[in-house]
Amino acid sequence: MVSSVVVQKFGGSSLGTTDKVSAVAEGIAHSREGNPLVVVASAMGGRTDTLVQLAQDVSAAPPAREIDALLSTGECASTALLAMALQARGVPAISMRGWQAGIRTTGPHGHARIDEVDPAPLREALDRGQVPVVAGFQGLGDADAITTLGRGGSDTTAVALAATLGARCEIYSDVPGVFTADPREVPRARPLTHLSYDEMIEFARQGASVLNEDAVAVGREDDVAIYAASTFERSAKGTTISARACSTPIAGVAGRDHVVRVIGRARDVEAVSAVHHRVAHRSHPRGLEALVVLNEGTRCELLAEEFGVEVEGDDSTVSIVGSNARALAPMMHEVLARYSLLGRNAGVFLGDHSVTGVVEAQNRQSILRALHAGLLETEVRTGA
Amino acid sequence: MVSSVVVQKFGGSSLGTTDKVSAVAEGIAHSREGNPLVVVASAMGGRTDTLVQLAQDVSAAPPAREIDALLSTGECASTALLAMALQARGVPAISMRGWQAGIRTTGPHGHARIDEVDPAPLREALDRGQVPVVAGFQGLGDADAITTLGRGGSDTTAVALAATLGARCEIYSDVPGVFTADPREVPRARPLTHLSYDEMIEFARQGASVLNEDAVAVGREDDVAIYAASTFERSAKGTTISARACSTPIAGVAGRDHVVRVIGRARDVEAVSAVHHRVAHRSHPRGLEALVVLNEGTRCELLAEEFGVEVEGDDSTVSIVGSNARALAPMMHEVLARYSLLGRNAGVFLGDHSVTGVVEAQNRQSILRALHAGLLETEVRTGA
Repeated sequence: MVSSVVVQKFGGSSLGTTDKVSAVAEGIAHSREGNPLVVVASAMGGRTDTLVQLAQDVSAAPPAREIDALLSTGECASTALLAMALQARGVPAISMRGWQAGIRTTGPHGHARIDEVDPAPLREALDRGQVPVVAGFQGLGDADAITTLGRGGSDTTAVALAATLGARCEIYSDVPGVFTADPREVPRARPLTHLSYDEMIEFARQGASVLNEDAVAVGREDDVAIYAASTFERSAKGTTISARACSTPIAGVAGRDHVVRVIGRARDVEAVSAVHHRVAHRSHPRGLEALVVLNEGTRCELLAEEFGVEVEGDDSTVSIVGSNARALAPMMHEVLARYSLLGRNAGVFLGDHSVTGVVEAQNRQSILRALHAGLLETEVRTGA
Repeated sequence: MVSSVVVQKFGGSSLGTTDKVSAVAEGIAHSREGNPLVVVASAMGGRTDTLVQLAQDVSAAPPAREIDALLSTGECASTALLAMALQARGVPAISMRGWQAGIRTTGPHGHARIDEVDPAPLREALDRGQVPVVAGFQGLGDADAITTLGRGGSDTTAVALAATLGARCEIYSDVPGVFTADPREVPRARPLTHLSYDEMIEFARQGASVLNEDAVAVGREDDVAIYAASTFERSAKGTTISARACSTPIAGVAGRDHVVRVIGRARDVEAVSAVHHRVAHRSHPRGLEALVVLNEGTRCELLAEEFGVEVEGDDSTVSIVGSNARALAPMMHEVLARYSLLGRNAGVFLGDHSVTGVVEAQNRQSILRALHAGLLETEVRTGA
């Protein structure tokens, strides 16, 4: 019988200290059961921020190639430490940088995409009975330069490796899976056992930080089931993201702060969205209007000038996510009206699996709670 | 006219903070004069120790492959930062990991030797007008694993790259070149303008920490002149190490602490010396006797058992270094006799360019000062 490969990814908050690195290694050693295993690790929590600060100390505008060369060292260090901690527990682990694991990327520094993964290095290690511990978030781009995939890119690494190996993908973090809302903001949020790739992508786009949007898109492309669960509470049931949709037409609610509206010709707005995170968009008399979260350090005036677009405001958003979310546009209108927000920005945007309203930051949390109570808590009471 | 390439290496103490990284970049930008330049950098001061501590936190016996994978990240980060700081000053710098700069190694993890350097990546960057900033201390070994060259290995990287490119090699540190003794211990020590590879190798072996012994050996092999000078006091005259010997038969004195005597069959003692630093040796009725500085964390009892040798004491050494040092054995005997040390360990060892005495730690500094006064200060007075 051929036992199937599992890819397990551990996030930075699960690796924030050497004690946590040891605890992650302990968990892997106990749960392994001899199955072929590939581990993907993020940088130790906080390390990437420290490195960004160092870069800002030496340069007002650090070049993207060197930022990638710098930030990638975080994962190189954490994977070596995790491999040591695993070996100390009898697991024959070896660390691998992105390029050693055959990960080639395309696209710009800081936002590269995984182009292809040569399965040979991982296959050979697995055949030797080893557990490769692969540095997430990084790969090798043009001219053999080191690239990074953008924040949260380690999820993408894990899913891409799982796709290459035909493996199951498990993403472990300090959150026990995907909830109907962020439990820190909506105390009545409840865990979801499963949702579809499309629902999860929409959830992530609208602010759910459990899983990276690009990672889920890679999973959808190759139909890799992704299991998101808690690193340190393995008994808690996590969430499976696959082709199978959430059992309810509304999966949950999510929100974002620091969202700007970008208005201009369609191709100019698309160009902005290629670099900055687009939450939602709709047509506009002058072309396209998009809600965008700008990359850190971007100044609105410079963006407007560079792309020839209009950039407005610093708002927040609330979104309803689910296969049937579009049908809830009237409800979103009604909620926004209740908060006297409609006139201000006429802000309702329809996505394929979401409806999004533009709100003031101070109202975001109460609106999220109201939406959650109205849409998702009745059901809980019925089920209880 | 073809301008010749220069390789400049900067040590960790010159890169201890981002302010120092910026100051190093400033110095390079000002002194460059358009010549083709390759920079080699160590890890930021203190970073390697931090990484070693992290490794010890997660494993009682971290595997050498993963130690190399971990420690090498220090230079990867410092080179990216230095490249950023250089670009901020208009110098078209790009960072390169050891493997990106074509550095292949042979030999064990932690003590690898540079086997060959593919000149293509550096030549291509120089042809594009770029300044490669290469991570010192590291290379790519068997099975594409990352290797390190041992502490101080960044010097070796610099000399090997200079040999490959037919370049001049400049090693910058917080010390303004090589002195007749360590000025912190012997206040009357004076700078040397030049000494030979052999003299420098002997000096380094006996405790002078300005330059790495292996680095000078690589320089000797390919006759690469090495200029050692101060990073931040560029006006101070440094020391040139080349085939040309020191102008005086005695170059200087040096000392070491924590030296053990290893006694056994010649091949067993040689085996110990292959892994630990050998200061001096002489024949012994039972084979060979060597003075050795053990790698950190090595326990004498385990060493004795593993190699089948006798390991004695925790002593210090003082050495006279120079082309004529052997002739001074009687003087060394006399000095040791004055400190009643001869009977205890009969400790005088002759090298090709040195004579070394075994002393007690508490006497080391006074003996060094006495030797320096007797051998090297008269001449100063004459010359003044």
